[in-house]
Amino acid sequence: MLQAGRSQEEIRRHNLGTLLRHVHLGGPVSRTVLADRMGLNRSTIMALTADLTAAGLVREELPGDTGKAGRPSLVVRPESRRVYVLAFDVRVDRLVAARVGLGGTILDRREAVRARAGADLDDVVGVLAGFASEMHRKARSGSVCVGVGAAYCGMIRPGDGMVRFGPNMGWVDQAFGTELGLRLGMPVSVGNEAHLGALAEHERGAGIGFENLIYLHGDVGVGGGIIVGGKLLDGDGGYGCEVGHMMVNPYNGRPCGCGSRGCLEAEVGEQALLDAAYRSGEPVGRDGVRAAVVTATDRSGEPVGRDAVRAVVAAADDGDMKAREALHRIGDWLGIGVANLINLFNPGVVIFGGMLREVYPGSAAQVESRIAANVLVISRERVQLRTSALGDDATLIGAAELAFSDLLTSPLEVLAHLTSHPEQTLTRTTP
Amino acid sequence: MLQAGRSQEEIRRHNLGTLLRHVHLGGPVSRTVLADRMGLNRSTIMALTADLTAAGLVREELPGDTGKAGRPSLVVRPESRRVYVLAFDVRVDRLVAARVGLGGTILDRREAVRARAGADLDDVVGVLAGFASEMHRKARSGSVCVGVGAAYCGMIRPGDGMVRFGPNMGWVDQAFGTELGLRLGMPVSVGNEAHLGALAEHERGAGIGFENLIYLHGDVGVGGGIIVGGKLLDGDGGYGCEVGHMMVNPYNGRPCGCGSRGCLEAEVGEQALLDAAYRSGEPVGRDGVRAAVVTATDRSGEPVGRDAVRAVVAAADDGDMKAREALHRIGDWLGIGVANLINLFNPGVVIFGGMLREVYPGSAAQVESRIAANVLVISRERVQLRTSALGDDATLIGAAELAFSDLLTSPLEVLAHLTSHPEQTLTRTTP
Repeated sequence: MLQAGRSQEEIRRHNLGTLLRHVHLGGPVSRTVLADRMGLNRSTIMALTADLTAAGLVREELPGDTGKAGRPSLVVRPESRRVYVLAFDVRVDRLVAARVGLGGTILDRREAVRARAGADLDDVVGVLAGFASEMHRKARSGSVCVGVGAAYCGMIRPGDGMVRFGPNMGWVDQAFGTELGLRLGMPVSVGNEAHLGALAEHERGAGIGFENLIYLHGDVGVGGGIIVGGKLLDGDGGYGCEVGHMMVNPYNGRPCGCGSRGCLEAEVGEQALLDAAYRSGEPVGRDGVRAAVVTATDRSGEPVGRDAVRAVVAAADDGDMKAREALHRIGDWLGIGVANLINLFNPGVVIFGGMLREVYPGSAAQVESRIAANVLVISRERVQLRTSALGDDATLIGAAELAFSDLLTSPLEVLAHLTSHPEQTLTRTTP
Repeated sequence: MLQAGRSQEEIRRHNLGTLLRHVHLGGPVSRTVLADRMGLNRSTIMALTADLTAAGLVREELPGDTGKAGRPSLVVRPESRRVYVLAFDVRVDRLVAARVGLGGTILDRREAVRARAGADLDDVVGVLAGFASEMHRKARSGSVCVGVGAAYCGMIRPGDGMVRFGPNMGWVDQAFGTELGLRLGMPVSVGNEAHLGALAEHERGAGIGFENLIYLHGDVGVGGGIIVGGKLLDGDGGYGCEVGHMMVNPYNGRPCGCGSRGCLEAEVGEQALLDAAYRSGEPVGRDGVRAAVVTATDRSGEPVGRDAVRAVVAAADDGDMKAREALHRIGDWLGIGVANLINLFNPGVVIFGGMLREVYPGSAAQVESRIAANVLVISRERVQLRTSALGDDATLIGAAELAFSDLLTSPLEVLAHLTSHPEQTLTRTTP
């Protein structure tokens, strides 16, 4: 709630954060445009920019040839190579790490493929901490790490990043955020992968400009991130948006990892698609799928993983009827879920991400048909259906945005805090 | 978004509104408590109270015997008899109107039972305007009407109160808000009945203190109002929360008024319950239900309406097995819907209102069993299930709160505007 006696200092902090956010999300921008967007006069913008420049967060430069006569307005740019965050993405089948500069540039990136389940907390934290120190060593001398964010494929307790439930990795109540923070020497913000994917698409992807947005993230399971009135829906404990466990098939639904049956993720997740494609025991699009099976099988030899999904999609593209039917079947259940969500949220856009980004084009007709049948006309007047613009990086980029969020709220305070805590050795490279 | 150069005037307006809201929602309260709750010092509270007193919105009085020694703190009370709103509730089976004083006291109330469908805009507006002028005439000399709110059982366009879709009354694109406003001579804020029921329960009922709340309103159909992070979920066009059209039964579902089948409201609405209770052609709890059928039948002679629902509930209470089975059947479908909503919203409380308030106790076991089976353990750790505390008045009280909202945002400005627009003759009684 808005506090009563809002001081000049609070107003300045707010304005500094807002200006930095404009530069971070929108890229290089002139003072004139900033003044316009923020509703402030140019002398205030100049003073704010001077503060941020002195702190080493932005710099001002003459733009390239503007094609206009007269003296060009200076352009404010983020100090992308000097100020960065570390972002991690713990996916079911791989660990991804990146160093991301202010402004959103991925400066460095590492990836480790791993066995799909059974990796314990120590293993995961060890691999990520190793990536962190490699990437940190490569950072330019004098650069500053202003935050660490991580996306995890499970239910995350806000505050300490405890993985309450990560069924696809077999984790229950694992202190992921705390342990990773201890290893890195600085606090780590952890979020659910689909929540962070939604945030990323909202700020940098297919959801820019939409205040009400649904992001569906397909993987082994199906997660969701829902933006309501510009804010991520978190609910009372931070565990909202569990779209994957929306019951869509109450009669003889497929068994779900949660112990129930007929959940959306049981009907449209990776295994549902592969089972539908392989139902007769005879694989679809033989060569393509067999190749995928070779590259990605679990211990029982069944095809699993994103490669197998891609093979089904490729086979459907090549005209394989069984693969097409599998996609249609997925689309029908997916359509029920999406229709329910549109009725509930009246969103401006629904974005299909993760594995659903690849599945959606072959399932779109069924999804649209369900929407036409089950969504009230008024609720669907303006909704758009899109695939993720950020692709597989949506969750990683969301983790980076989470890591930047403190800086964008109180830029100077966060820098001052880092400077006064030299024991956070990872935060500042020494020459 | 928070504006940058927040002036002293804006801060004062904000504080006046906040203080008035405390008094309006919390009732008489001492300056000391107000200072504490608002985080302001006592001299600021005294100045704010003086302004509101001068405007005739509150008065200060010595409290009754406090049982404590020493000089008691003055108590700030709302001027409930001087400052009021008009609230209307257009239900499927009746029109309700009330004059509600600041502080939430219902000062006067009118009701007209009517044929269930086919009433046109002019009829409804005519009846409501008639109620308004009767109630206005009875208001104390010198009292001021500061707003008008109306709840309607349909999809409402924000801004002008157009009824986009009111299937149970057969209304499509009817300019309800505008027409009623013209008749009354002052603007009318219109909201969907379940949205307003949620607001009322949140502020004054079973949802006080919950920032994430689901309100389900059963009538002929099933509506929903969902509070996310303290705010009503409205979506892109204001048409969110259509829980009634969540598909719960994709196989041979019952036909729904929206043209689809298997929607939540088709499976748990009034008609579903009555059909389940009467399925064999033999009514349940014979005497009770037959009595209800006499008091509420539509043209075809089928039992309809809240009275028939009550008769089924009463029969179940009396041990009638068929009535009990009907409630269990409703509870099973209702449970799927509620489970889906808990997974999506991670709410603190789910509130059953309207006809569901009466149905829920006999269906609770099935609802709870579905929640246990289909909601992730972590998502349901803390959720509470409650029946509406405001009963059938929830939607009416929500309409009153909607009508008060401008006053509670800018108290002095709203009063000044009313004074400077004497053509809004209804707003001020002359002696």
